[in-house]
Amino acid sequence: MDNFNFYSPTFFVFGKERENEAGKYVKRYGGTKVLIHFGGGSVIKSGLLDRVKSSLTAQNISFIELGGAKPNPRSGLVYEGINICKRENVDFVLAVGGGSAIDSAKAIALGAVYDGDFWDFFIGKNIQKALPVGVILTISAAGSEGSFASVITHENGMIKRSAHSDALRPVFSIMNPELTCSLPDYQLACGATDMMAHVLERYFTNTKNVEITDRICEAILLTVIKETPKALANANDYESRANLMWAGMVAHNDICGVGREQDWSSHQMEHELSAFYDVAHGAGLAVMFPAWMKFVMHHDIMRFAQFAVRVWGCEMDFQNPQTTAIQGIAKFEQFLLSIGMPVRFSDLGANEKDIPTMVKTAGVGSNTIGSFVKLTEKDIEQIYKLAL
Amino acid sequence: MDNFNFYSPTFFVFGKERENEAGKYVKRYGGTKVLIHFGGGSVIKSGLLDRVKSSLTAQNISFIELGGAKPNPRSGLVYEGINICKRENVDFVLAVGGGSAIDSAKAIALGAVYDGDFWDFFIGKNIQKALPVGVILTISAAGSEGSFASVITHENGMIKRSAHSDALRPVFSIMNPELTCSLPDYQLACGATDMMAHVLERYFTNTKNVEITDRICEAILLTVIKETPKALANANDYESRANLMWAGMVAHNDICGVGREQDWSSHQMEHELSAFYDVAHGAGLAVMFPAWMKFVMHHDIMRFAQFAVRVWGCEMDFQNPQTTAIQGIAKFEQFLLSIGMPVRFSDLGANEKDIPTMVKTAGVGSNTIGSFVKLTEKDIEQIYKLAL
Repeated sequence: MDNFNFYSPTFFVFGKERENEAGKYVKRYGGTKVLIHFGGGSVIKSGLLDRVKSSLTAQNISFIELGGAKPNPRSGLVYEGINICKRENVDFVLAVGGGSAIDSAKAIALGAVYDGDFWDFFIGKNIQKALPVGVILTISAAGSEGSFASVITHENGMIKRSAHSDALRPVFSIMNPELTCSLPDYQLACGATDMMAHVLERYFTNTKNVEITDRICEAILLTVIKETPKALANANDYESRANLMWAGMVAHNDICGVGREQDWSSHQMEHELSAFYDVAHGAGLAVMFPAWMKFVMHHDIMRFAQFAVRVWGCEMDFQNPQTTAIQGIAKFEQFLLSIGMPVRFSDLGANEKDIPTMVKTAGVGSNTIGSFVKLTEKDIEQIYKLAL
Repeated sequence: MDNFNFYSPTFFVFGKERENEAGKYVKRYGGTKVLIHFGGGSVIKSGLLDRVKSSLTAQNISFIELGGAKPNPRSGLVYEGINICKRENVDFVLAVGGGSAIDSAKAIALGAVYDGDFWDFFIGKNIQKALPVGVILTISAAGSEGSFASVITHENGMIKRSAHSDALRPVFSIMNPELTCSLPDYQLACGATDMMAHVLERYFTNTKNVEITDRICEAILLTVIKETPKALANANDYESRANLMWAGMVAHNDICGVGREQDWSSHQMEHELSAFYDVAHGAGLAVMFPAWMKFVMHHDIMRFAQFAVRVWGCEMDFQNPQTTAIQGIAKFEQFLLSIGMPVRFSDLGANEKDIPTMVKTAGVGSNTIGSFVKLTEKDIEQIYKLAL
């Protein structure tokens, strides 16, 4: 196990009707003038936004609203939010939504207390501080409610990049699984896939002797595999949504990834895919992950066999562990299909002829991406082709 | 799943040689005058205390030392620590040791900022504040390095009670698995048992549909079962100790227990046992837990069957799940024996004739303890007898 630090100071407020406590928690964490940042009209139509505003008003907290956060959130809205914060002396950013609204809110919180361009932090500048961010989560997927990351696509060149800092961990996150009951099946399945990817990018590691985090990774995967079909089968099944919501947080606050080398190359390859075709992040991952697995499997057959046996219930082939490894990947792909995910380029409207451009945009050049297996541009091209 | 809050703001500093960063973290969390609280001479003999002191001195932080914390830590030393803190204007308590030193340090931190008797907080008074507590952990067991609890035995009547508050969560915990390599086998095994108990008291619940926390509980148990024999077999196996150390924290910071009814009656019954005979907490648990299981098993055979299948690899007897449930408890007991734990009263020097007194001291009266099954005094007596 490698040396590590782990710090997850977010106050999680989980359960039915908890969004009505938003005002109380904004006050506890010092907010007096709040930017409420959200996505589309669903939080308005559902009445959620009104409930949150009432909760703030009840605590005499003033607020400004900024809607419009979209999947693969863009820099334009971040700049707009930063301007509002600076102009109106906003001291707290409250995200109401999923990963897009939260990531966008985090980027706004960064830029609001910085004189330069917020994008600096997405191209390597060290993060020192940000406004406090609170979250009211409406979809189980990105894990941004407990994570230290923000992913933004810059409209100048459609470049998708991430920033990381413990300063980006939300001060509180309100997680009411009821809010996810109205999600379309496709979004729910994309979310489940995103969670699984967050775990798998920690699971496939070269670090030896990491049983505790291996087992926690497997715990989360087993939960998602059991609960997602139940949630899809019954839109009002609170319990499966509750399990998925907590799983999504645990999948990405890094409790399952500490002390081990991680490999985020699939996310990176997917980022190019989703920036290029604007497909849902989870759907892109469903296409990229099995392809990546098929390419890197031979690097550590026994780890893939463990994945197959412990996560997918495959029987170990002691004569030929590779058979088991292959079965595990096949079961994963079948599961993705069963929850309505695409697993091929063509399902996404993606096209073989764009592969060279995506490989270039990935910006690898003479370097490599990934850790489990270090991927060259040639490798990335082959993985994209395995996804055809 | 029940509604819950979860808040684990401790900054965990994990890995080799990390104790040398103690000064840096005390400074980060505002300490200028530190009470270093530790147990016996082992932290002196090993040179650990000197390294910690050097690290504080390097940051110009002054300190006072208070040793003497013992297993089942006592009120006398807590009062002494509180007096020192008040007299010397201590603003930070640094525990160097295991659960005893940490729990004692937490109680000192409570009393240092309170005009009344610190014991008030252990008999129900609400906790508002405490001095910040930092930890340098030397044994994987109690989980106090990440927990919100402190357990103290009052010398007036030898009553063991606990206090709970997020204010008792350490601000940082330094966890270097190397420090546990010199532990005697018996202590290591007691620690492993304590961890398992922390998980099991969350695992056996009446709350339905808690797959994510069930799975995380099982992940921790599977890790302890795999790593403890490795650690016992080779005192210098850093990796098994690293897995156990992180498992011990995760077992008790409540990430595996949120949103579900918990049942701490085994701990409560063990507290009477260890207060009475001054046996190691883990050893007392090894005796009490299987007895409790045998008594409550019939309340939910399928949960015990799940425990048997998922944790102990038993084959499910679909015709007669009770057979599987019984096998699981037997395997647990065999495991405890295999790591050198006692599993009967007589192994502890405990005596049948003391049972009535222990039942009385447990202070149940007309009330009950526990949640999975609510235990009357008569039930407790039967459980103690099952442990004979």
